[in-house]
Amino acid sequence: MTKPVLRVGLIGSGFMGKAHAFGYGSAEKVFDLPFRVELRTLADTSMALAQHAASALGFARATDDWRAMVADPAIDVVNITAPNALHKEMALAAIAAGKHVYCEKPLAPLAQDAREMAEAAEAAGRKTQVGFNYLCNPMLALARDMIAAGELGEIRSYRGIHAEDYMADPNGVWGFRHDPAGGGAFADIGSHALATAEFLLGPITRLMGDTVTVIGERPDGQGGRRAVEVDDIGRTFVRFANGASGSIEASWVAMGRKMQHDFEVYGTRGALLFSQERFNELHFYSADDPAGRRGFRRIEAAPDHAPYGRFCVAPGHQLGFNDLKAIEVAGYLDALAGRAEEPFNFRKGLRIQSLVEAVHDSSKAQVWVDVA
Amino acid sequence: MTKPVLRVGLIGSGFMGKAHAFGYGSAEKVFDLPFRVELRTLADTSMALAQHAASALGFARATDDWRAMVADPAIDVVNITAPNALHKEMALAAIAAGKHVYCEKPLAPLAQDAREMAEAAEAAGRKTQVGFNYLCNPMLALARDMIAAGELGEIRSYRGIHAEDYMADPNGVWGFRHDPAGGGAFADIGSHALATAEFLLGPITRLMGDTVTVIGERPDGQGGRRAVEVDDIGRTFVRFANGASGSIEASWVAMGRKMQHDFEVYGTRGALLFSQERFNELHFYSADDPAGRRGFRRIEAAPDHAPYGRFCVAPGHQLGFNDLKAIEVAGYLDALAGRAEEPFNFRKGLRIQSLVEAVHDSSKAQVWVDVA
Amino acid sequence: MTKPVLRVGLIGSGFMGKAHAFGYGSAEKVFDLPFRVELRTLADTSMALAQHAASALGFARATDDWRAMVADPAIDVVNITAPNALHKEMALAAIAAGKHVYCEKPLAPLAQDAREMAEAAEAAGRKTQVGFNYLCNPMLALARDMIAAGELGEIRSYRGIHAEDYMADPNGVWGFRHDPAGGGAFADIGSHALATAEFLLGPITRLMGDTVTVIGERPDGQGGRRAVEVDDIGRTFVRFANGASGSIEASWVAMGRKMQHDFEVYGTRGALLFSQERFNELHFYSADDPAGRRGFRRIEAAPDHAPYGRFCVAPGHQLGFNDLKAIEVAGYLDALAGRAEEPFNFRKGLRIQSLVEAVHDSSKAQVWVDVA
Amino acid sequence: MTKPVLRVGLIGSGFMGKAHAFGYGSAEKVFDLPFRVELRTLADTSMALAQHAASALGFARATDDWRAMVADPAIDVVNITAPNALHKEMALAAIAAGKHVYCEKPLAPLAQDAREMAEAAEAAGRKTQVGFNYLCNPMLALARDMIAAGELGEIRSYRGIHAEDYMADPNGVWGFRHDPAGGGAFADIGSHALATAEFLLGPITRLMGDTVTVIGERPDGQGGRRAVEVDDIGRTFVRFANGASGSIEASWVAMGRKMQHDFEVYGTRGALLFSQERFNELHFYSADDPAGRRGFRRIEAAPDHAPYGRFCVAPGHQLGFNDLKAIEVAGYLDALAGRAEEPFNFRKGLRIQSLVEAVHDSSKAQVWVDVA
Repeated sequence: MTKPVLRVGLIGSGFMGKAHAFGYGSAEKVFDLPFRVELRTLADTSMALAQHAASALGFARATDDWRAMVADPAIDVVNITAPNALHKEMALAAIAAGKHVYCEKPLAPLAQDAREMAEAAEAAGRKTQVGFNYLCNPMLALARDMIAAGELGEIRSYRGIHAEDYMADPNGVWGFRHDPAGGGAFADIGSHALATAEFLLGPITRLMGDTVTVIGERPDGQGGRRAVEVDDIGRTFVRFANGASGSIEASWVAMGRKMQHDFEVYGTRGALLFSQERFNELHFYSADDPAGRRGFRRIEAAPDHAPYGRFCVAPGHQLGFNDLKAIEVAGYLDALAGRAEEPFNFRKGLRIQSLVEAVHDSSKAQVWVDVA
Repeated sequence: MTKPVLRVGLIGSGFMGKAHAFGYGSAEKVFDLPFRVELRTLADTSMALAQHAASALGFARATDDWRAMVADPAIDVVNITAPNALHKEMALAAIAAGKHVYCEKPLAPLAQDAREMAEAAEAAGRKTQVGFNYLCNPMLALARDMIAAGELGEIRSYRGIHAEDYMADPNGVWGFRHDPAGGGAFADIGSHALATAEFLLGPITRLMGDTVTVIGERPDGQGGRRAVEVDDIGRTFVRFANGASGSIEASWVAMGRKMQHDFEVYGTRGALLFSQERFNELHFYSADDPAGRRGFRRIEAAPDHAPYGRFCVAPGHQLGFNDLKAIEVAGYLDALAGRAEEPFNFRKGLRIQSLVEAVHDSSKAQVWVDVA
Repeated sequence: MTKPVLRVGLIGSGFMGKAHAFGYGSAEKVFDLPFRVELRTLADTSMALAQHAASALGFARATDDWRAMVADPAIDVVNITAPNALHKEMALAAIAAGKHVYCEKPLAPLAQDAREMAEAAEAAGRKTQVGFNYLCNPMLALARDMIAAGELGEIRSYRGIHAEDYMADPNGVWGFRHDPAGGGAFADIGSHALATAEFLLGPITRLMGDTVTVIGERPDGQGGRRAVEVDDIGRTFVRFANGASGSIEASWVAMGRKMQHDFEVYGTRGALLFSQERFNELHFYSADDPAGRRGFRRIEAAPDHAPYGRFCVAPGHQLGFNDLKAIEVAGYLDALAGRAEEPFNFRKGLRIQSLVEAVHDSSKAQVWVDVA
Repeated sequence: MTKPVLRVGLIGSGFMGKAHAFGYGSAEKVFDLPFRVELRTLADTSMALAQHAASALGFARATDDWRAMVADPAIDVVNITAPNALHKEMALAAIAAGKHVYCEKPLAPLAQDAREMAEAAEAAGRKTQVGFNYLCNPMLALARDMIAAGELGEIRSYRGIHAEDYMADPNGVWGFRHDPAGGGAFADIGSHALATAEFLLGPITRLMGDTVTVIGERPDGQGGRRAVEVDDIGRTFVRFANGASGSIEASWVAMGRKMQHDFEVYGTRGALLFSQERFNELHFYSADDPAGRRGFRRIEAAPDHAPYGRFCVAPGHQLGFNDLKAIEVAGYLDALAGRAEEPFNFRKGLRIQSLVEAVHDSSKAQVWVDVA
């Protein structure tokens, strides 16, 4: 039986563009995908760039005209890894052309834009995905399943962090991530921490934010200086619908941190600790262990934790970041084939944007806000 | 040259009473104290209890009348390790009798009581100490000195936590720590996190609190149930006078945690990570290390880090909790002898109480409050 | 400019067969390979198996006749991931047919067979590779470079371990790894520890082995029992040509260990610690750090550590096991194109086999043996 | 009821002399000792030194004549912390004078001397102790008890290490630890690793040693150089009476290591990992945990692990090195009172010396030796 072909168009070939291409490549070998993937067209800002990337990443065609690609009937799904400010225009065009759309996070700088995108996709019956790759880690699935199964008892509290130091240098040049419309640390990486929190514990219902600008101006890249208004650090208190309270923090000036996407979950019968710095491990404390033998146990990723076994039949060999992207791709393709729900569609991407904005609104107004 | 004698009276012989006795014992051998310590009298709630403890802990006399002991001219310094609610009465009586007073934390359930105590001591010219033992760790002194010396550059952010699980069991009986007047997790252990934060970074100027009651009632110990209003978990955003922002959290229902008194400090040139779970280590990231060779380095306690060398001439042997108490005792005795400032006097104890109350007030009113 | 095509034939589609296929796939996207890779033919023991695997792994053709494939003029390089006992016959046939050969470790059960294979390849001028994937980790390259550059000073001692628990269960069935001709823990995984040791420190010159059979018989899979003579645990003292002494250990019955491929290197100016359990980290102690600030620093894999940056432009994202295989593939293809030396050819594979046999010989005779 | 008095004489006031004094001091407060301890006389090499130390450490009298002190009828137990070469003469004199003797390790430089000492004590019916302080850690007692109770199943393998770097500097001056008669790393700290191995697993029966001199000469402290023949690094394969095999290693040139007194024990049902660098933790893997939930769990020292609770009623507060010495003192005093067996008497000290010599003999002859 031959598999149907899925013809992929990709816009962008930077960090995330590459990750998408790697992800499709691995997913096709690692998983039994419902489609044969055809990397058909890669669009970038210049023909030279696009051709080079297409060749390197295995796309059959290159173009510097994303609009043409999006309209091309020979494309089934459009992958958007262009700068955030362009996501909306591209996604709406793709949806209008009848494509499924797989867009990098954040879905759009502003929640109202993200809402338009989600509604357009739903109205058109197109299947969508937003790339929150850390969620695709088998150890996060394990954590979520353990929580859902009650292995921690009733959940009481949560701490989530996403901290890095890529904006720690005040001489780093002003860029789109500093744009007041949708920029800042909480939007950029706090969004990951929010996504993980809701992935594990379900919906947040209220929050109280506190965002801080640390580096007030930056070189504008043209010899001058430009004021920065967005948050370098953001924190928020949260309440979950399940009754737990917690906090979530983001910082892109956390000197020394490269990938502190961490969480701690405490329940009545146990607890979980996780750090993306060692993301093939999950630490589990069970109050049900015998007295004198209790402690956080370091569970290493293994075939017990699907879909790890697709990548390696032996435990302890470890997945890498690009493997997480392959899992993300596979999940989306299952959804496209009707095998499963969309793992993280535009509606969920909108949800994260709304939470980010709520953090900012709350911080500005210095009041708790409802986000139910 | 003979040393002057310091005659010590101790009220209480529980957890902290023992720690005081151990501390005096070790301090006298480990340090070159300015006094010869005489453990003169131990007071407890019954004569039997007091006699047993006096004998075990090396006190010459026992009494069930703390008032008499406090008034005894043969006592120079009164150590108070009785329940929090009694601290004020005892300390004021001791000060009135001309004694120096060394009181366990919290100084008093309410800041107004702590203020009375601090003012009484100052008016009487008595030297005081509040027992915030975690501060006496040489690795905390190292951290503070590194920060002060600019080894981290300008400080940008802080995260402090004190989490344990000793109140995680909802069947744990209602006790004085649940008393609405001065009880709760933030008062009990959040106070440690606040003390460490100001020890390292200097004064907090503003804060926004969020305290939560998780276990709404507990057995009253007499067959009934009793409502609990105090916080089981507390969180606060903070601003420091040095310009840094941060958060501080306390929980006594953090299942699996036994001593998560942790902090992270991020500056423009480096960072520090610390966990009381491994309190003989300090983790230091220096942005000045060569590219490709940077990372958090695990500094192990050693004679380089005074006063570690008084306990052991070789590195890596490690101090224990009771050693921290000995350092605390030695610091106080130096102050009594006029060799040094009081390391943590009643005024500072009051400061911590004020901060705790500010966290609660802020939480209740859901507004930021100044604490400058 | 079009790249030349490299036509790949793969024998086997199990654990390592998949890893090869994943490796080729990723390598082509991640690296700028000197060839366009064509996954041409996959051979397995039955046509059904071969077809299924070819389809899943992206090979154009399937066959159950490896001899035909090896003789096929349309194949440039033969990848052998069949059981160890077949490596020799397959490799010799491929070399005879003028192919380059990329063979999984161990090259052959016995060193004399490995020697024949190496000599055949050299005589025929074919380029070869043996799959010691752990060596392809950027952090190992970093370690080797740091040692070579003298960052640790003169090397004094070494400890290498490879321990897992996949043979810990005495009810595990007798298999080819238990075959007295070439089986045992030291051959299977001690070989990895030996390869890493020589990769880092250069040649071992003398050794004294100690191998132990722990589980003396196993189910034969047919209702009976079969005696086991091979080592479950092996240890060896070693001397290196650089003057350092050390030890190397292998165990496949180390309950709880999934991937303890660890080493410690101590020099006059510094030390390195590594564990494959956290293989995106290297821990470095420098005696040149200032007093009171020394400690093992946790260096996280980053673009500073080539070729990490090919996979991800940001630090801290981490490589996975399959990424290591992609690096291995890329290194071999560079050698095939004449861009670089063969990273780990049959001659080196023979070297490891010879060391493994020396460990066994030494252990049996209970004497030190030269392996210079 | 009044406790009998135990009058203590101490020879030496250096590192270990202080540790003994601290140990007696703490033990008396922490434990319910069978004696009231009287620190009666401290002997050192000069009267000034002795007087200073006696005053600092709380001894009533000082002397520069250890022979007189040993003969003093007002002394019950003699503590020897003088240089190793003097242990024998001092201990024999003390035994001859009817004293109990508590001697620092190693009991004597040579096993034949240690044997004389053990036999003299036994003949005289005196109770003895050798100070192997790491054994007194509650986490080691826990490990031993878990092993004995079968929680790990049948023990298959062991790895023990004691590595530090205090002799890593080749400019460190020649001292008694370099004396060919009884010096070297294995005697000095390998002895600790041997003691821990037998403490946990019972007797070693055979071994094969490998000792190495790394720094062949050192300054003699008088402007010249002096050859060094003792081992800087020592390794040994071992067999235990229980059937397990293992290895033990010692190094005092392991740059960066301050206290790597580590072990790993692997059994059929579980494993234990321990590092003295974090000696308030024991890591336990149980194969009986549910699939997908297995991992090494970090057990933190707590009142569950006697005698931790004597020091602190709450978990996670941690013991320090001097606390281990207090436990050692208490164990000896229990033996002196007839409450318990001698925990580690001269006979056991002799055992360790014999093992050390066997390692050296074996290494020199390059043969396995029996040590049953």
